[in-house]
Amino acid sequence: MSDRTRTTGPETATPNRVLPDPAALDRTDPEGAIATAAAAYSNWGRWGEDDVLGTVNHIDEAKRREAAALVRLGISFSLSQSFDMDGPQKGWRRRTNPVHTMLDTGVDAALGNQGFPHGIGGADDVVSMPLQCSTQWDGLGHIFDHGRAWNGRDAAEVVTSAGDLVTGIEHMAGPVCGRGVLLDAGRVLGEDGELPDGFAITTEHLTATAREHGVEVGRGDIVCVRTGRLARARREGWGEYAGGPAPGLSFTTADWLHGSEIAAVATDTWGFEVRPNEFDHAFQPLHQVAIPHIGLLIGEMWDLDALAEHCAADGVHEFLLTAAPLPVTGAVGAPVNPLAIK
Amino acid sequence: MSDRTRTTGPETATPNRVLPDPAALDRTDPEGAIATAAAAYSNWGRWGEDDVLGTVNHIDEAKRREAAALVRLGISFSLSQSFDMDGPQKGWRRRTNPVHTMLDTGVDAALGNQGFPHGIGGADDVVSMPLQCSTQWDGLGHIFDHGRAWNGRDAAEVVTSAGDLVTGIEHMAGPVCGRGVLLDAGRVLGEDGELPDGFAITTEHLTATAREHGVEVGRGDIVCVRTGRLARARREGWGEYAGGPAPGLSFTTADWLHGSEIAAVATDTWGFEVRPNEFDHAFQPLHQVAIPHIGLLIGEMWDLDALAEHCAADGVHEFLLTAAPLPVTGAVGAPVNPLAIK
Amino acid sequence: MSDRTRTTGPETATPNRVLPDPAALDRTDPEGAIATAAAAYSNWGRWGEDDVLGTVNHIDEAKRREAAALVRLGISFSLSQSFDMDGPQKGWRRRTNPVHTMLDTGVDAALGNQGFPHGIGGADDVVSMPLQCSTQWDGLGHIFDHGRAWNGRDAAEVVTSAGDLVTGIEHMAGPVCGRGVLLDAGRVLGEDGELPDGFAITTEHLTATAREHGVEVGRGDIVCVRTGRLARARREGWGEYAGGPAPGLSFTTADWLHGSEIAAVATDTWGFEVRPNEFDHAFQPLHQVAIPHIGLLIGEMWDLDALAEHCAADGVHEFLLTAAPLPVTGAVGAPVNPLAIK
Amino acid sequence: MSDRTRTTGPETATPNRVLPDPAALDRTDPEGAIATAAAAYSNWGRWGEDDVLGTVNHIDEAKRREAAALVRLGISFSLSQSFDMDGPQKGWRRRTNPVHTMLDTGVDAALGNQGFPHGIGGADDVVSMPLQCSTQWDGLGHIFDHGRAWNGRDAAEVVTSAGDLVTGIEHMAGPVCGRGVLLDAGRVLGEDGELPDGFAITTEHLTATAREHGVEVGRGDIVCVRTGRLARARREGWGEYAGGPAPGLSFTTADWLHGSEIAAVATDTWGFEVRPNEFDHAFQPLHQVAIPHIGLLIGEMWDLDALAEHCAADGVHEFLLTAAPLPVTGAVGAPVNPLAIK
Repeated sequence: MSDRTRTTGPETATPNRVLPDPAALDRTDPEGAIATAAAAYSNWGRWGEDDVLGTVNHIDEAKRREAAALVRLGISFSLSQSFDMDGPQKGWRRRTNPVHTMLDTGVDAALGNQGFPHGIGGADDVVSMPLQCSTQWDGLGHIFDHGRAWNGRDAAEVVTSAGDLVTGIEHMAGPVCGRGVLLDAGRVLGEDGELPDGFAITTEHLTATAREHGVEVGRGDIVCVRTGRLARARREGWGEYAGGPAPGLSFTTADWLHGSEIAAVATDTWGFEVRPNEFDHAFQPLHQVAIPHIGLLIGEMWDLDALAEHCAADGVHEFLLTAAPLPVTGAVGAPVNPLAIK
Repeated sequence: MSDRTRTTGPETATPNRVLPDPAALDRTDPEGAIATAAAAYSNWGRWGEDDVLGTVNHIDEAKRREAAALVRLGISFSLSQSFDMDGPQKGWRRRTNPVHTMLDTGVDAALGNQGFPHGIGGADDVVSMPLQCSTQWDGLGHIFDHGRAWNGRDAAEVVTSAGDLVTGIEHMAGPVCGRGVLLDAGRVLGEDGELPDGFAITTEHLTATAREHGVEVGRGDIVCVRTGRLARARREGWGEYAGGPAPGLSFTTADWLHGSEIAAVATDTWGFEVRPNEFDHAFQPLHQVAIPHIGLLIGEMWDLDALAEHCAADGVHEFLLTAAPLPVTGAVGAPVNPLAIK
Repeated sequence: MSDRTRTTGPETATPNRVLPDPAALDRTDPEGAIATAAAAYSNWGRWGEDDVLGTVNHIDEAKRREAAALVRLGISFSLSQSFDMDGPQKGWRRRTNPVHTMLDTGVDAALGNQGFPHGIGGADDVVSMPLQCSTQWDGLGHIFDHGRAWNGRDAAEVVTSAGDLVTGIEHMAGPVCGRGVLLDAGRVLGEDGELPDGFAITTEHLTATAREHGVEVGRGDIVCVRTGRLARARREGWGEYAGGPAPGLSFTTADWLHGSEIAAVATDTWGFEVRPNEFDHAFQPLHQVAIPHIGLLIGEMWDLDALAEHCAADGVHEFLLTAAPLPVTGAVGAPVNPLAIK
Repeated sequence: MSDRTRTTGPETATPNRVLPDPAALDRTDPEGAIATAAAAYSNWGRWGEDDVLGTVNHIDEAKRREAAALVRLGISFSLSQSFDMDGPQKGWRRRTNPVHTMLDTGVDAALGNQGFPHGIGGADDVVSMPLQCSTQWDGLGHIFDHGRAWNGRDAAEVVTSAGDLVTGIEHMAGPVCGRGVLLDAGRVLGEDGELPDGFAITTEHLTATAREHGVEVGRGDIVCVRTGRLARARREGWGEYAGGPAPGLSFTTADWLHGSEIAAVATDTWGFEVRPNEFDHAFQPLHQVAIPHIGLLIGEMWDLDALAEHCAADGVHEFLLTAAPLPVTGAVGAPVNPLAIK
């Protein structure tokens, strides 16, 4: 591990802690807690007025060299769920599963229906899908706080019907590769490798998990937090995977997400943060801090199971991770097929 | 370079050459030439009856380790064109440019139209697109020869209206990362970095380009051939970029594509092979050999320009390349955002 | 009523009856029953080799004049369900509910985001949907029997990946208007206006319903059979409306569907025929006779409730009906907004 | 003709004329002309605060009875263009031609690929399309004037990313049927039945055309103005049909559109009004008056050619017209297959 790597221990992550312990959160005042966290953890202006990358700025060339040096076996893992109708979407916010249809098929080709010469035949296809239907990155234009987008911009000037005119996901096309760290909270903290719905993963949980793995998390890392929720969905059916209860990050991890200077965080759940959340009446409060204020790249619905299995077996929880989103211009999120290479 | 790397010189690639020089091809008999090449270069059965990876089998763990070791700077390049309406598609085979629409916007969020509590707002989006509308991999189920798909299978049993039931692109989700080599044919052979339409790039051209770069191509490599066609489209407008004339690989490179044991090849053109092709009446004849018989993974519409600029400047034309397609289940091709890391 | 109108009484409809009473159907032999019905009720060749209209040929100019003369009040009823995400589809056969998204909005216009001069603003939109997601006509290319399409054609030559090359729904764009008759089986035979799931509506039921209404059904009519299934779905939620159990036409009505020489039949259910059907193991057996053999135009998911209410009140169950499908070229079914005008 | 029918003569339509002759329009001041016309011809409040129908309110039951009585022959004409890739769209405002793809085909069915029992096979399909890609009605939420929608509403509260929350096209699902009148301006005023691009059809032209046909236009009518532009596109190729120059209604017809109390107007052109328009720098100025202020239902891209041929032959230019749009909830426009029945 290089000297630049900051550890996850409370001694380094908490100097700027302003949020109370999860148990002491005022459940009746999400707006107050969000405002407090937003003020404490804002990265607005940190990378200039024109910034479009947020915490991805934490990935530097040294980090990528460090990451490449982690490839010792030459094994690669796709961290993507499949994109098909057998997915969790049920129509919330008009999100469907991907509809994949054929423009031409081998059946047609075999019958010679296609009008091509000298025996060539072809198949072609189309997809129609929400950009956040399966494994994805949330773009910086995905969530706003009181009309403000990342870096303090007016949400109305950033994301119009023409898409995200400023922080579209295309800006993430190149830089998102570096050191990945798996924090298998499901395996370390759960039963049979899975955390129950509503389990709020705190900074202390994350720290303990990293310690258990013998891995450190530092500036510029892409942190993959496995809860086991996806494994359960695979076993028991999708049920409320999309939008229902789930384990996930506690609102109080905002200070760690900011202070650790990680580049991105991804989970195997629909919504990254714990659901139901830790307030009486709130919707994705950690998103409201993490995206517009911290400028954090958040990955959701990642499939960490095969990688986790391997990490558990060989005890190595760090790897090269490349996670370049599909650069749909102006998108506020995008599908991605992340590759972990050990 | 490891010992396993076979050079591109004629002395190694031509022992099994069965095709004549490009100039000696019988322009009137594409079907004969295809049959000859198919017989000579078939990989059917090479990786077993159940194979779904074709030449990607050439990528092994050692190759990935070798590739990771090429990361000396920590700079990453996205090799993807953008996905938006400003693309080359004009409707051929019902291929449109991607239609990206918003389900919610910052404009709505700023007006408080969204019904969320405590000041959170969000944007969400959808895309509808052909899977081969922009930067993509052709899947092994994309092209057939006389009703036969990769590995000798009946095309009608492989790709139905339900998609590719056997060799869907999802099988490529994990393994496609390794050593990338840029062969900048446009810069080495062209004027101002660009080859003219109809320029057939031969094995000799590829070999000469590699020699000029001081790079060798070997088993398991992912070869990126830059023609300059995309740079021209950017300068002059899309015109006939999609489906019109273009520089590209000569039909006669089939033996090199097979004999070099590369894992994949990608170009900055719509169709990878030279257009018009080298027969009087034929449609994509090199595809007809390369995909169903060689089992070769072919990338098209890659954007190699920024990478090429860097390689020309530092003289290093090899890199780590990760190019994991979006795993749309059963797709016969898929968008990809390839990352080259030097 | 004109002289041309044939009554629905058993005395006229049953001379060619070859199917047993519903109770006497051999539940174990759907294929035999289908073959018997297909042979008895085939209209193949009846309107020439090139026919693309099937029973819509029964609508002649006199029928349309007769239908127009039924307009006595000047009231029109849309018989279409809405097209939106609040629909019954759950993904079977990749059928989703319609996804409607905006390309531009009034919110954008009000902010002046659109780049238009002198104060004009605009909104625009897109839809992505299965053609049979809501109120629709089944085209003649929708169902096949042992590889045969309407008029005896080879299904493989009629409907390819390019769509229905012969009997596409566009051929129905003009002619489908004439006399509509509502048979409110739910009101006449059911409790509280609704039939239970699995209720097989027989020819005798249809005849009795018509008699109760005081209306006759004849050649060229478009018959709307209301079961009450949609009203129940509205009250109780969609549940299994799409693809689950439902009241519907008995397999044994095949002889009436043929012998009555009606032009079309439509119901307020997902699948027109009773579900589960009257065989131990079969899928939509009445479709298999009605579409490829009788050439019958079948409407599904129509909303007959408001019309039925009016008909019950004024006792008039006949009307002018125009039901021109959206002419999507080559479609095997299409959305339609049918208008009943009394 | 009933007493209620107001004639089109200048003596009845012009009492409230406030716009100058076309030749006297101030080409440099579209905004002034629009403001003048908006003030003079506004129907805001005419049908109450909650109105969602605009001029469709002019269609009453008597009008529908009158219309039905026009059916003397029993012949029906579809006035819809086809919906397929061979359409005029070229991507402006992300408008593509409809992409129709198959979910299942006869080719698959014939091979027994589908998994259905006892010989049944099926085909199914999907469409993805802009709602204004082909023959359509503009909804009342399609165009705004300085942030105001129909009836004076705030555009930002009417049409959000969730669609038109107030005046969605679904409200037009039932009422749009009545008396149709064809004004074949192309035949009466043009050469070989076609007007040239840029030809501004004035009130006097409309009146003269009606006089030539021997038909009167009155309250509640749906007026179909044929320019011949579509016939030309069919002969010469689409070219700039979508968004380019075209004949169409003069801005000065605003007073006739208002004063005649017609229910709707439709043309065979992309944009209904003349293009280029009659101002130096303006975009669809007549839309800006007609939709938000008059509340006029506007049809575009209708195919009037076959109907026009018939009307020219028999001299009858009035008919029953049913033009019920596909009720996509919240749509600001919708495809329609209008039927004219003579």
